[in-house]
Amino acid sequence: MSKIMAINAGSSSLKFQLFDMPSESVVTKGLVERIGLSESIFTISVKGEKHKEITDIPNHAVAVELLLTKLTGLKIIASLDEIDGIGHRVVHGGEAFSDSVKITDQILAEIEELSELAPLHNPANVTGIKAFQKVLPHVSAVAVFDTAFHQTMPEKSFLYSLPYEYYEKFGIRKYGFHGTSHKYVSQRAAEMLGRPVEQLRLISCHLGNGASIAAIEGGKSIDTSMGFTPLAGVAMGTRSGNIDPALIPFIMEKTGKNADEVLDILNKKSGILGVSGFSSDLRDIEQAAETGNERAELALEVFASRIHKYIGSYATRMSGVDAIIFTAGIGENSDVIRARVLNGLEFMGVYWDPMLNKVRGEEAFINYPHSPVKVLVIPTNEEVMIARDVIRLSEIS
Amino acid sequence: MSKIMAINAGSSSLKFQLFDMPSESVVTKGLVERIGLSESIFTISVKGEKHKEITDIPNHAVAVELLLTKLTGLKIIASLDEIDGIGHRVVHGGEAFSDSVKITDQILAEIEELSELAPLHNPANVTGIKAFQKVLPHVSAVAVFDTAFHQTMPEKSFLYSLPYEYYEKFGIRKYGFHGTSHKYVSQRAAEMLGRPVEQLRLISCHLGNGASIAAIEGGKSIDTSMGFTPLAGVAMGTRSGNIDPALIPFIMEKTGKNADEVLDILNKKSGILGVSGFSSDLRDIEQAAETGNERAELALEVFASRIHKYIGSYATRMSGVDAIIFTAGIGENSDVIRARVLNGLEFMGVYWDPMLNKVRGEEAFINYPHSPVKVLVIPTNEEVMIARDVIRLSEIS
Repeated sequence: MSKIMAINAGSSSLKFQLFDMPSESVVTKGLVERIGLSESIFTISVKGEKHKEITDIPNHAVAVELLLTKLTGLKIIASLDEIDGIGHRVVHGGEAFSDSVKITDQILAEIEELSELAPLHNPANVTGIKAFQKVLPHVSAVAVFDTAFHQTMPEKSFLYSLPYEYYEKFGIRKYGFHGTSHKYVSQRAAEMLGRPVEQLRLISCHLGNGASIAAIEGGKSIDTSMGFTPLAGVAMGTRSGNIDPALIPFIMEKTGKNADEVLDILNKKSGILGVSGFSSDLRDIEQAAETGNERAELALEVFASRIHKYIGSYATRMSGVDAIIFTAGIGENSDVIRARVLNGLEFMGVYWDPMLNKVRGEEAFINYPHSPVKVLVIPTNEEVMIARDVIRLSEIS
Repeated sequence: MSKIMAINAGSSSLKFQLFDMPSESVVTKGLVERIGLSESIFTISVKGEKHKEITDIPNHAVAVELLLTKLTGLKIIASLDEIDGIGHRVVHGGEAFSDSVKITDQILAEIEELSELAPLHNPANVTGIKAFQKVLPHVSAVAVFDTAFHQTMPEKSFLYSLPYEYYEKFGIRKYGFHGTSHKYVSQRAAEMLGRPVEQLRLISCHLGNGASIAAIEGGKSIDTSMGFTPLAGVAMGTRSGNIDPALIPFIMEKTGKNADEVLDILNKKSGILGVSGFSSDLRDIEQAAETGNERAELALEVFASRIHKYIGSYATRMSGVDAIIFTAGIGENSDVIRARVLNGLEFMGVYWDPMLNKVRGEEAFINYPHSPVKVLVIPTNEEVMIARDVIRLSEIS
């Protein structure tokens, strides 16, 4: 028996989840928000009750100290010695990391170097790692990379048709993200299907505020919709996904903005928000579309049709598909999007049941029993994957 | 009986083809190159023999005058009065033109305005139109747009998930190109299949130095791989096709180039040339790959796999496909690329015959007879489409 903490540190936030292993039961979980701003918010669940505190938390180290103080203070654990390992989500592992890894000084330096590829994310992840090192220096820590699962992609999938030296000199290639989620749901799908993952061709649709699709053959990612950054692929809450690259200079010229400003619009003002003109939250959009808002309807169509086409593309990539998986906020909860994505896939053997499709947030098959291709809803669980990797790599039992 | 001239004017070139209509037999064809440069080259076929002349041709008007002089001088026609109509290829028709149109002063002004969307192409097309107006002012002229056939795309296909006002204010949307070619081969495919085009779901692969894929349902384009410009979609001879848009600012920063310079690299130094590192010509690449050149092999893989995935995507878009068409230089001639594109499509009913696939440059079925999805090679003929539209719109018989 051991207790493992899974950490996801953002630039001004820190999410945590403490597991009892190997039972994988959640001891507590919570969130620190507005780190470095005034009136930071600390939220932690204690025996199912939410405990919330507003206080100034100037940096991640202070956030970690507060978290640890609360763990004992609220009697969630008796002593900090009970924490046997910490797993940190790290967004970018580049080509160096195709698996999770125990954190050493050298590894930490490599993660910092990779900040060039993920300037918004890796520095925050590093801050989280260092904050825990400071207060729990002797506890084993593991880095779990969002990109690692996709390192099995072959070159024809990951290479852009740009001058080849851009790949060699600058590391320009498709990395893919949401890897921990795609890996989790693909393994879980194999269990639900009662078949070894090695024999399966799966298409995993991670549809949250960020969204990516992955083609997973024999348990390995062979293609995915996100690219060099999480901007690429399908339309998302506020991200454009793929567009004609020539549009960037054109928009620069038309709006007088520079390239970084245009990129900011592609990341933050596009996607469902851009098309609908009023919200990036699919729940708002679904509601508005129901009452006849045409731009909301269009946003649903654009969002769903891009995913629909990726499914066709990835089924083709694997010469067929055994199961399609929906996960993350929208994938787990929106029967409207799932229906629009699945409509018209009968020709490739996908027969889904509108009644079963009404499921929200729980594991379920939503295909008809006779459907050659199965369709699964699987709530993702990146945190438990992190905890498992800490156990595996730290030789904790 | 009438004679119709089909014209394709580029910035320094002018291609022409003279038809006898309605028989559609080619009276003569040829090309003026290096217009505006020294040692311009004029080539024209006379009864199957190529006639070539090197002389200085300072502008398109002079090129047209020379062409007309040669037509009578070489006794191809007895008098210029025999030319009953002229059809001009125009690259961009924006949203204004969903069909070919008889050229008036107002139409010409509209085509000039659309230069904003096609700054490299429309001005050259306009130059060609004006040159003919000058020397043959009373002959009926028709503009045939590369974008027109794709104007049937629904909004969910043509809209980018960018701020909606970019579409309204700047005309930012997917237009698609190669429309005349996609239209020609889809009509020809229906004839070859002996079925009305209205009942068919076709995927047309126009694979030349530029390449685009179109989903054609009931004779109408409902989606295509090129976008706002001909840069988007699959990898091409020198064009990148779709990439993560975030790469543009990243490449700018890494190389110190500005946005237009990076765009130039995406247009001229990427694609097959970029990946292989030595040629944009697929024939060179196939040869090198055969002798073990790995980067050539990779270029073939990248080129074919993108097309392969589009076929899956568009079959899904139409909930199935009746026939796949290959056309243009590579599509008509490269059995190597066709084989790589078609491999692994059995799951959607595509069974192709490696022996039949050896065909080059002529109309053929290359599927096994029992294949539910037919596969056709069809040499494209944009010129005859232009001639037909001149007849249709000019009320010439």
